[in-house]
Amino acid sequence: MLIEKYQIDQHNGELSEKQQNKFNFFKAENPSAESLLQKLVDFQIAIPSWALGTGGTRFGRFSGGGEPRNLEDKMMDIGLLHQLNRSSGAISLHIPWDIPEDVEKIKNLAASLDLKFDAVNSNTFQDQPNQAYSYKFGSLQHVDKKVRDQAIAHNIEVIKQGEALGSKSLTVWLADGSSFPGQLNFREAFQNTLASLKEIYAALPADWKMFVEYKSNEPNFYSTTVADWGQSLLYVTKLGPKAYTLVDLGHHLPNANIEQIVSILLMEGKLGGFHFNDSKYGDDDLTAGAIKPYQLFLIFNELVEGMDANNMNHATDLGWMIDASHNVKDPLEDLLQSVEAIMMAYAQALIVDRKALKAAQKVNDVALCQEILQEAHRTDVRSLVAQARLMAGGAIDPIGLFRSVKVREKLIEERGLKSVATGL
Amino acid sequence: MLIEKYQIDQHNGELSEKQQNKFNFFKAENPSAESLLQKLVDFQIAIPSWALGTGGTRFGRFSGGGEPRNLEDKMMDIGLLHQLNRSSGAISLHIPWDIPEDVEKIKNLAASLDLKFDAVNSNTFQDQPNQAYSYKFGSLQHVDKKVRDQAIAHNIEVIKQGEALGSKSLTVWLADGSSFPGQLNFREAFQNTLASLKEIYAALPADWKMFVEYKSNEPNFYSTTVADWGQSLLYVTKLGPKAYTLVDLGHHLPNANIEQIVSILLMEGKLGGFHFNDSKYGDDDLTAGAIKPYQLFLIFNELVEGMDANNMNHATDLGWMIDASHNVKDPLEDLLQSVEAIMMAYAQALIVDRKALKAAQKVNDVALCQEILQEAHRTDVRSLVAQARLMAGGAIDPIGLFRSVKVREKLIEERGLKSVATGL
Amino acid sequence: MLIEKYQIDQHNGELSEKQQNKFNFFKAENPSAESLLQKLVDFQIAIPSWALGTGGTRFGRFSGGGEPRNLEDKMMDIGLLHQLNRSSGAISLHIPWDIPEDVEKIKNLAASLDLKFDAVNSNTFQDQPNQAYSYKFGSLQHVDKKVRDQAIAHNIEVIKQGEALGSKSLTVWLADGSSFPGQLNFREAFQNTLASLKEIYAALPADWKMFVEYKSNEPNFYSTTVADWGQSLLYVTKLGPKAYTLVDLGHHLPNANIEQIVSILLMEGKLGGFHFNDSKYGDDDLTAGAIKPYQLFLIFNELVEGMDANNMNHATDLGWMIDASHNVKDPLEDLLQSVEAIMMAYAQALIVDRKALKAAQKVNDVALCQEILQEAHRTDVRSLVAQARLMAGGAIDPIGLFRSVKVREKLIEERGLKSVATGL
Amino acid sequence: MLIEKYQIDQHNGELSEKQQNKFNFFKAENPSAESLLQKLVDFQIAIPSWALGTGGTRFGRFSGGGEPRNLEDKMMDIGLLHQLNRSSGAISLHIPWDIPEDVEKIKNLAASLDLKFDAVNSNTFQDQPNQAYSYKFGSLQHVDKKVRDQAIAHNIEVIKQGEALGSKSLTVWLADGSSFPGQLNFREAFQNTLASLKEIYAALPADWKMFVEYKSNEPNFYSTTVADWGQSLLYVTKLGPKAYTLVDLGHHLPNANIEQIVSILLMEGKLGGFHFNDSKYGDDDLTAGAIKPYQLFLIFNELVEGMDANNMNHATDLGWMIDASHNVKDPLEDLLQSVEAIMMAYAQALIVDRKALKAAQKVNDVALCQEILQEAHRTDVRSLVAQARLMAGGAIDPIGLFRSVKVREKLIEERGLKSVATGL
Repeated sequence: MLIEKYQIDQHNGELSEKQQNKFNFFKAENPSAESLLQKLVDFQIAIPSWALGTGGTRFGRFSGGGEPRNLEDKMMDIGLLHQLNRSSGAISLHIPWDIPEDVEKIKNLAASLDLKFDAVNSNTFQDQPNQAYSYKFGSLQHVDKKVRDQAIAHNIEVIKQGEALGSKSLTVWLADGSSFPGQLNFREAFQNTLASLKEIYAALPADWKMFVEYKSNEPNFYSTTVADWGQSLLYVTKLGPKAYTLVDLGHHLPNANIEQIVSILLMEGKLGGFHFNDSKYGDDDLTAGAIKPYQLFLIFNELVEGMDANNMNHATDLGWMIDASHNVKDPLEDLLQSVEAIMMAYAQALIVDRKALKAAQKVNDVALCQEILQEAHRTDVRSLVAQARLMAGGAIDPIGLFRSVKVREKLIEERGLKSVATGL
Repeated sequence: MLIEKYQIDQHNGELSEKQQNKFNFFKAENPSAESLLQKLVDFQIAIPSWALGTGGTRFGRFSGGGEPRNLEDKMMDIGLLHQLNRSSGAISLHIPWDIPEDVEKIKNLAASLDLKFDAVNSNTFQDQPNQAYSYKFGSLQHVDKKVRDQAIAHNIEVIKQGEALGSKSLTVWLADGSSFPGQLNFREAFQNTLASLKEIYAALPADWKMFVEYKSNEPNFYSTTVADWGQSLLYVTKLGPKAYTLVDLGHHLPNANIEQIVSILLMEGKLGGFHFNDSKYGDDDLTAGAIKPYQLFLIFNELVEGMDANNMNHATDLGWMIDASHNVKDPLEDLLQSVEAIMMAYAQALIVDRKALKAAQKVNDVALCQEILQEAHRTDVRSLVAQARLMAGGAIDPIGLFRSVKVREKLIEERGLKSVATGL
Repeated sequence: MLIEKYQIDQHNGELSEKQQNKFNFFKAENPSAESLLQKLVDFQIAIPSWALGTGGTRFGRFSGGGEPRNLEDKMMDIGLLHQLNRSSGAISLHIPWDIPEDVEKIKNLAASLDLKFDAVNSNTFQDQPNQAYSYKFGSLQHVDKKVRDQAIAHNIEVIKQGEALGSKSLTVWLADGSSFPGQLNFREAFQNTLASLKEIYAALPADWKMFVEYKSNEPNFYSTTVADWGQSLLYVTKLGPKAYTLVDLGHHLPNANIEQIVSILLMEGKLGGFHFNDSKYGDDDLTAGAIKPYQLFLIFNELVEGMDANNMNHATDLGWMIDASHNVKDPLEDLLQSVEAIMMAYAQALIVDRKALKAAQKVNDVALCQEILQEAHRTDVRSLVAQARLMAGGAIDPIGLFRSVKVREKLIEERGLKSVATGL
Repeated sequence: MLIEKYQIDQHNGELSEKQQNKFNFFKAENPSAESLLQKLVDFQIAIPSWALGTGGTRFGRFSGGGEPRNLEDKMMDIGLLHQLNRSSGAISLHIPWDIPEDVEKIKNLAASLDLKFDAVNSNTFQDQPNQAYSYKFGSLQHVDKKVRDQAIAHNIEVIKQGEALGSKSLTVWLADGSSFPGQLNFREAFQNTLASLKEIYAALPADWKMFVEYKSNEPNFYSTTVADWGQSLLYVTKLGPKAYTLVDLGHHLPNANIEQIVSILLMEGKLGGFHFNDSKYGDDDLTAGAIKPYQLFLIFNELVEGMDANNMNHATDLGWMIDASHNVKDPLEDLLQSVEAIMMAYAQALIVDRKALKAAQKVNDVALCQEILQEAHRTDVRSLVAQARLMAGGAIDPIGLFRSVKVREKLIEERGLKSVATGL
């Protein structure tokens, strides 16, 4: 289902006076407010095709109703999100969970929903039916060349699928690693992985990027073959100019300073993009900003500072994607919450007084440096973000509208109570 | 399948000279060796019914062949393990994964395999088909009394199942908690859980124990309603004398000093038992002793010291169980490795020179305290453990025999290549 | 030095229009704003006597200028802070670092500065000159009764010092523990500590409280004898109704859910008070709210909810204190920042829509629960906190005024550039 | 004081029969034992000049008696250790704590004690009296070029000191970083640091190495400018072929897989050396092998495998040093314990059946891989290490001899009860 334009207009009509009042107050305090609106409008966060259904853990999965039954349903869900917030105008496909059967039809559907095809994602962490070799002991790292070749071929196939749709990047997340000391020769695992990645890299179209994601642990519990940003950077440096590191916020050891990693990767010209989520313990895949919103802001603070230093375009020069698991909330509401939190962090980073910050840093005025960042984070930017959404044709209060027009109830009616989304 | 006695005899015959030689050397260094053998023989570690098959993560599961197809198969597997090491003489059932259809038959089978029925485990972390209410938002903690009642009734049913078989304890592990700030009122969740546990406790037979397990996180990622030993102790103290805390080695925050927790719970008379496994990151459920064998020894050091101080029987006064997930190894080999590591840690704890340690502690001779513990841990106790196994009728080298008689191959022949064990 | 009243008036005069404008906007959105002001005015956060100077690490300490040379200087510094924010009206003394030489004079000075004497703190983690026995191997836990007696006597002396000044509580933080496996018998260390605490408890005046602080590690690196809230709760429960657990935000293992601990301690009626600070890695003792402001809010959310459920007085029924180390910032500015962050977290907790939250929890509307908490945290409460400050006679912008009247420069003039604060 | 040769002979005489018996048993099980002895004899672990006295924490320091009063005393202490274990034949100097006043005299003393001069260590984490600029806000990273220049000059001075003595490497550990968000521009801090390191690198003699150490946190508590192996590798790669990464075991985030880092650094040809210690929580600086001896073995397993793959000489191609803090033990006994634990881990790594391991890895026989490593670690190698020590002229039981000849008592007699070692 989609929302009718009149429904959005009516919703906005009811809230507009209040919104205008708040935004006016915001503008009075932040004279540059108007100039930020377009940046916020331009900023789009891709939704992965596997995030539209209820996720789970190894202990269980409690599906909700009205989950998408196929790729078309998933795209419709993202289209609906994009109608509401105008910031979710891209889909990131997971292959083989979401192989288009009819590419033209899918492209037309995307166009009608104003969605772009973001990075395509390969999957070598599960075995598919009729697969010749198992990934039980890894894929691109595998001791057996035949398994590696199968995984390479799959990645190249994913590139092809993405090319047909208009994607411009491939994200490689590897579960490869080991669960016990001695299981792997780390060096050979690295070298096998590198050699495999090189073959995939060679198949990249000229205007594509390859993102190499890292993760400290899980599903392997002793070592991971692309375990941290340092290892990812080694791979992408050896691969070449089209290879970049991808940062997923939940893939770090406890207490890691992610914002510093972001800054260094930008400095090296090797930051490729982001998977947004939040976590308290491990790769919890919670809603972005749900646990550590200040950290999210600090990360955006480095992104804005570092991208500006590199003359990069905020909206287009890095890949922005959500990667969360919706275990106890309606996936669509959860995604709206994630996007909102990301937009707020970005907005707060935009209003940091960079000139004052630089001056304070120059004289080691640590208290003032802190004040300047806190000033931005303590500012209520909700009216700014809402104004950008309004400007782009979205709803002032996306979740409010989602609930008032009874989206979920209608999806259940349409798709049934027991539909279970394919993929993770 | 079972192993024939002659196969064990033949195996031991081939290795006995070497074993005798090693054990003689051990005895020369450790004059009390003979006196320890019976303790090792008596020490039995229960195998959970869900650990006989290949485990997995939320990302995938790569089953092996010849996995048990039903409860009888699982018992046969444990019987086989017990033949090999004579230390796995108990099974811990998970309900509803392993409900006996014919109790008498199952009891007879257990008797024929020399297996006891250890603690029974309830499951309120998954929804079963035809269940009236969902556990998506908790079970014993649930805001809705009807859901709590259903979970209580299930636990009482599990007690009944256990009673029929001769179990003497119920283990309650709760996934209950929350994944987002605000989701729960912590106090009310605690009080609901306590009230529910009280109803279950009231249904315990007079000679039963109830074990309340704690876990810091997963599958909930913000809070767990029995999150640490302190919370478990609060519950079991409020419940009464039959309620005890159960320690699972993988259920702690990073860097926790588990051995100190063990000591304090013993001091309070509230330690009930153990779930053994090892981990590097979270609840990794790896083979016991695979990552931190010295920690395992230190835990047994506290167990032996504390149980002796309380005049407890090592073999029978606490519940000993493995709780691991066999994702990349043959589950039976993995269990043999876990049992071996546990027996070694126990044996090393038995040879600690407690008199000297106490004397060194009395004068704060920290270097000597360390030497005394390291002396025990550095001692190669493999021949001692093997001797106890030999004495009890097991194999000198259980994994060696397992492999040489081609157990797995025969199980595959018998059960097929694609059998997938029921349960986790 | 102190600030003249006219300086504050002038400062407020300059900022008052802007403040009024902001507060009016706030009130329009939060109709209950006026009713919260008195709560904020009443809320006082004690400043420890050791926090007025530059702190350090084992690697070094880089003192600033104008640091207090004695207890009177320290009280003057706190008096100044209290003039600025009207929320720092109490001092927490550390004995023996800050023993009053002339009690009446000190009491008069406190009265003139409108300061109360909060909890007194004992010190058995360092050896003092001319001390008979060393605390190298612990104090209240020590294997030698003579050392324990000395530490007990010190604590009783601290109570006496506090009584003379009008304190009503004793905070016991113990460094006691061990740095190597084997060093301690955990059970005996616990029992020695408990017996020692009982003797101190027996010396408490009738209207006093004893706070037993816990800490996971440091300065001992293997075990701590009051290591977590569970152990502290065991002690205070065994001690009696005047003993309570004290929570220091930096004293937990990585990823601990502190807000849940707070809720449970309140439920048990055993939460005594707080040491505020923030941290990323361990007991980093950074400015409150500098790293995880959302966590600080979530803690206050539980405090407000739990204290209200117990009919407790927010301002007086728990002990509130800062415990931070000012290594790279002006200590006074740093303390102003901490107090501000705490007041904001408290204010945000006060505006949580508790009725709506309870209703959402009742129906497991997790997304809405999250929205409700985020709504409060995203609200810019700075004008509310400033308004309360203004109402109480403080400065609208304490750090701004601190800087504009050149407090530090004057302190340096008065006390010299090389003064080093006594104590930590 | 030194030990007389006859004392060692007499000690060995008393223990030699027992030792021979044990070693014979070891040899019977490990036919290659004899061939390993020379490797163990050759393996020398440097002792840092700051480790001979009692260390402390920010909370206190409890000095022991007989601590070295000057550089000569420190060298005598190391000479004594080396007499006892024949594995501590090098000293690593910390400048400016241990600047030789008379270089020739110091060189002669070293020669007489059979000590080499290992890496020299600079110190820019503390301010020295009469220093022009403070390192409060960093040294090589500092925003002020004059501070950076001072720190560069100090490092070059340290190189000169080392050259005079015959050192061949400089270790640069930087406390540089930040304690609060906003304090630093990460990119500029990196670039300042890199530029500074380049100037120091330019002053390195042709046959010298520069080691760049990393550390996740402390004494800065928000960011560190060389925070992890990835950042160190970036620096040393940009610096050139004489620059290498140095690994200190306590400088990682919780749960880090250090052995994998070691393997990758060796693969890249950029591992320079080690600082050995052990830890449970942070940079606890405990005795090597006191907490996680299996991890220490796994690290040596990678070292042996990786160095052999690179045709490196175990004894000389990497820098081996202890870096621990002796807070509650006699520093000399503590060092003997560390060296023993390191030698055992090395010995166990040498007896790993590498051919079998490689074969098991090739077929993903994970259980067998684990067995092979555990086989080596469970082997009691104490007699092997003692035999090597005996062969080299040391004592069979170094701590036993240290105690029986009453070294500490004599040092106290010689140096007094209240001597406090200079430096950390």
